[in-house]
Amino acid sequence: MISKNKIKFIISLQKKKIRDEQHLYVIEGDKLVREYLKAGIKLHILAAKPEFIKSLTTGQKENIEETETASYDDLKHMSTLKTPHNALAVAGMPDPEIDMEEVYKGLAVALDFVQDPGNLGTIIRTAAWFGIRYIFCSENCVDVYNPKVVQASMGAILHVRVNYCDLKIFLAGARRKKVPVYGALLEGESIYSGRPGRKGIILLGNESKGISSDLLGFVTKKLSIPKFTSAAVGIESLNVGMAASIIFSEFARRNRQALTDSDSGPVSVQPVRR
Amino acid sequence: MISKNKIKFIISLQKKKIRDEQHLYVIEGDKLVREYLKAGIKLHILAAKPEFIKSLTTGQKENIEETETASYDDLKHMSTLKTPHNALAVAGMPDPEIDMEEVYKGLAVALDFVQDPGNLGTIIRTAAWFGIRYIFCSENCVDVYNPKVVQASMGAILHVRVNYCDLKIFLAGARRKKVPVYGALLEGESIYSGRPGRKGIILLGNESKGISSDLLGFVTKKLSIPKFTSAAVGIESLNVGMAASIIFSEFARRNRQALTDSDSGPVSVQPVRR
Repeated sequence: MISKNKIKFIISLQKKKIRDEQHLYVIEGDKLVREYLKAGIKLHILAAKPEFIKSLTTGQKENIEETETASYDDLKHMSTLKTPHNALAVAGMPDPEIDMEEVYKGLAVALDFVQDPGNLGTIIRTAAWFGIRYIFCSENCVDVYNPKVVQASMGAILHVRVNYCDLKIFLAGARRKKVPVYGALLEGESIYSGRPGRKGIILLGNESKGISSDLLGFVTKKLSIPKFTSAAVGIESLNVGMAASIIFSEFARRNRQALTDSDSGPVSVQPVRR
Repeated sequence: MISKNKIKFIISLQKKKIRDEQHLYVIEGDKLVREYLKAGIKLHILAAKPEFIKSLTTGQKENIEETETASYDDLKHMSTLKTPHNALAVAGMPDPEIDMEEVYKGLAVALDFVQDPGNLGTIIRTAAWFGIRYIFCSENCVDVYNPKVVQASMGAILHVRVNYCDLKIFLAGARRKKVPVYGALLEGESIYSGRPGRKGIILLGNESKGISSDLLGFVTKKLSIPKFTSAAVGIESLNVGMAASIIFSEFARRNRQALTDSDSGPVSVQPVRR
């Protein structure tokens, strides 16, 4: 049975400070835990009902450092959800080292002050879907290991590396390497026209303020999603998650067409291991 | 000063049952209230700080039946948000009459058991952006006048008519009229290929279960968003809001191309008045 101290420790990981110190974060839910194990991700702690633990294969169990049985009440106590699942686990954060040459070769995303955990989570999930492997967040973005972000990303954080940095430094680096920076703005070239970009950085801004003024200078191409209505009230902009998904979809569509034109197959992307 | 009874009444509108009985719902926030007034929407009650009330024009004030000054504490009491705004208002639900001929002429959306208020709100916002004027929800979808949906839709419910009905009856009606039904599924024709549909119903399913089996028979064309990655773990599907926005964007892009080809301008859409 899981000890009180272990429960306390897992709850303490709801705080960003503790997560950063420990390089650990919590995933919740039977499905997510199984997916991590299937993907061969090492779990530091698994806290689950006995039935869940019994259902794991020997190979999966070998990937767990500590397995602790937990009651419904224990799980409810540790959970950030209204109704707890049968399992939650503690996983390690990935190695922060990034090969920037790799980043510059394809499409990456930069997020400036995205605050809503649901938005960040779904942006990660959609990025993974479209084969985008790197997201660079300004330091004032919501934390990727915030339980709500982890939940909304549905395991996609295994495939997308989310890094926190000073975006001015990151974008200046891209500029030196002549990597295009596509800024999602209300005024700009229609995302449906123009030449498809096969590499570059898609820069998206804050939910209400957009891209901050000190980053606008790094934008080499302003992109916008045309509004197909003459009505103005209440539809000044799209939600950042929606805008992100539409832009990712457009880049993917046009790049795939470009690939089809040159008779090569779609690019295959490997999951990020940690 | 707003009376206790009025405060109680406004709080009671957080319940769907009361909203339905009264045909009223609450909007929160200085910006949203101003947008409703700018759009000429009649407000039944405005509860706001004196400064906010003073800032309104005479024309705007004439569109408000009852204007009540409220303190920060009153507003906090009535608000569903952690931090209240300076104003909230009670608005009337629109006339439920719909001209089905009008619906069948363009693109409409049908949502089967969409449960998350944030998803419904952002789908409405994105639909408005792309000029979609009608959304038909199954009766087990989250209520459009749920405060979280109203908040996430950012005023777009002024432009999109959201109706609750038995989708089987609605889709059977579309079938009789030979209106195409595009089902968003994991297996289907790529949304990027095929001929653009200028009219029809885009059917989207539940967050985890997709489109229910008793509606699948009405689908005349299965559409899917291709996955641009070989990784499988955790990215089995896209969030329904993301999928909706990508599909709306594709229909809009291809229809606009069709319009450009025939040298006509974009279709202008008028806001729904209530």
